Amino acid sequence: MRIAVVGAGALGLYYGALLQKSGNDVYFLLRSDYDVIMTAGLTVFSENGDLHLPKVKGFRFTDEIGKVDLVLVGLKTFANEFFDELISPLFGENTLILTLQNGLGNEETLAALFGEDRILGGVAYLCSNRGKPGVVHHLGEGRILLGGHARIDSTKTEIVAACFRDAGIDCRVVPDLKSARWEKLVWNIPFNGLCALMLKPVDSLLNFEPTRRLIHDIMNEIITAANAQSLLKFIPLSLPEKMVASSFKLGQYKPSMLIDRLEGRPLELEAIFGVPLRVAAEKDIQMPRTQQLFALLQLTEKD
Amino acid sequence: MRIAVVGAGALGLYYGALLQKSGNDVYFLLRSDYDVIMTAGLTVFSENGDLHLPKVKGFRFTDEIGKVDLVLVGLKTFANEFFDELISPLFGENTLILTLQNGLGNEETLAALFGEDRILGGVAYLCSNRGKPGVVHHLGEGRILLGGHARIDSTKTEIVAACFRDAGIDCRVVPDLKSARWEKLVWNIPFNGLCALMLKPVDSLLNFEPTRRLIHDIMNEIITAANAQSLLKFIPLSLPEKMVASSFKLGQYKPSMLIDRLEGRPLELEAIFGVPLRVAAEKDIQMPRTQQLFALLQLTEKD
Repeated sequence: MRIAVVGAGALGLYYGALLQKSGNDVYFLLRSDYDVIMTAGLTVFSENGDLHLPKVKGFRFTDEIGKVDLVLVGLKTFANEFFDELISPLFGENTLILTLQNGLGNEETLAALFGEDRILGGVAYLCSNRGKPGVVHHLGEGRILLGGHARIDSTKTEIVAACFRDAGIDCRVVPDLKSARWEKLVWNIPFNGLCALMLKPVDSLLNFEPTRRLIHDIMNEIITAANAQSLLKFIPLSLPEKMVASSFKLGQYKPSMLIDRLEGRPLELEAIFGVPLRVAAEKDIQMPRTQQLFALLQLTEKD
Repeated sequence: MRIAVVGAGALGLYYGALLQKSGNDVYFLLRSDYDVIMTAGLTVFSENGDLHLPKVKGFRFTDEIGKVDLVLVGLKTFANEFFDELISPLFGENTLILTLQNGLGNEETLAALFGEDRILGGVAYLCSNRGKPGVVHHLGEGRILLGGHARIDSTKTEIVAACFRDAGIDCRVVPDLKSARWEKLVWNIPFNGLCALMLKPVDSLLNFEPTRRLIHDIMNEIITAANAQSLLKFIPLSLPEKMVASSFKLGQYKPSMLIDRLEGRPLELEAIFGVPLRVAAEKDIQMPRTQQLFALLQLTEKD
């Protein structure tokens, strides 16, 4: 498959590397890493075995790449305003677009630009960070829950999933992408939000009873909002217990929003907080803790 | 009146200075300021006119002071465990104790030690900071709402109020101290809490729509909890609007909890958050935003 990776952060580089390794023709849109990757290649350090790709097809502009079968979108959601400019040159008659971004609203924005029958969404459970230029550290997990958005042909979804599985990625097709997106928010809102606000890694929040209880409370708030959204699959009330327990294993992991704040980048507040709060409010669901966290994180961006 | 000021921070020094100026026999328990005040005296800079007391009766231990008519308690509430040790040497047959501390629970703790018929509480609306040793900056306001706790004789309350008024302090006796305490919490919880958490002065929070709305929401939460406490005087739902409007005038004012955090002191979390949350929960009132703020402030103390 001819695949373009747009948004080559840790996530885009990691999946792109695996897809290239398994024989796909992968094109990376690169920015700060361009020079290093073009000369020294791309390296993934992983507990599943390190991977070095000495030769990578990197580009500075997507119109140098041409049309592809699949666009893999790994952009930070605050860059969604560049969808049209970045993806249009890649978009041919049969091109599919898969967004692996965080939060809500990304498929809808893409569908409005490129058509409801071309968009896939994937919820990636991946722990990864960037190291020095040209290096990605894979810290754990990596599975993708893949779903078609709106009017896409389900065989196309299956073809993309098979391509990912051939690359060794645990990729399952789910019947209800929206449920999967909300389920990921149950983790993302408290952990990304609180870690970024308090400038602390995951374990600092989990190892202190008042904040561990707060995480539970926030998670319950999100589940209530999610289960008011006519999901095909309800989110079980037992999820917070399970999610908190498994998050202890992450130790001093820094969620992406904390890293964004530490590195002075904008935060993905609209996709992870703004849109969920808005669609919850449309169903008359109040999320006081999530709203408070959103307000305080917005304040940090005013610095 | 023979008055001992225990807890001579900005508040204790300010009111103590006015009480001495008007002819009372005032004894100050001093710590870090002791040497400076004993040699250079005490200075209050105020928009109402500056005040310098060249001679002040300062002591390092309360047993050097002896019995008094009135103990004015201005201690930080995290030091309440020292009530017995600090106040007992001052406490005679007719001694009254007036706590001007923040939050809830202080009168009750004092009453358990010294008797229900001896305790007064005052809610001080005072903007003041300490300057260099021996100097207090009075930034605005200063009125005290004074009330008797439990079984105190109301004529005693009136005598203390008259003494304060003679010193030029706007001191009104209120029939329901509990209402006044809760009303002050409506300001203290959002402003002390959010300013201390975000390390920002009052105007930074007020001049940003999401946090200004959050302040309103927190205030409403506290009013709901307050009005479930069988108060003699209900807190009106119009209070947040009024309080927010008047807080704009404070400009870059740093509430005491922010200063405590900046100067590495413990925060008054139990009196301002812990007790109110507990008595609200006893009436089945949830305060999700206040609870969240409490948890995050507790986390800052673990640094």
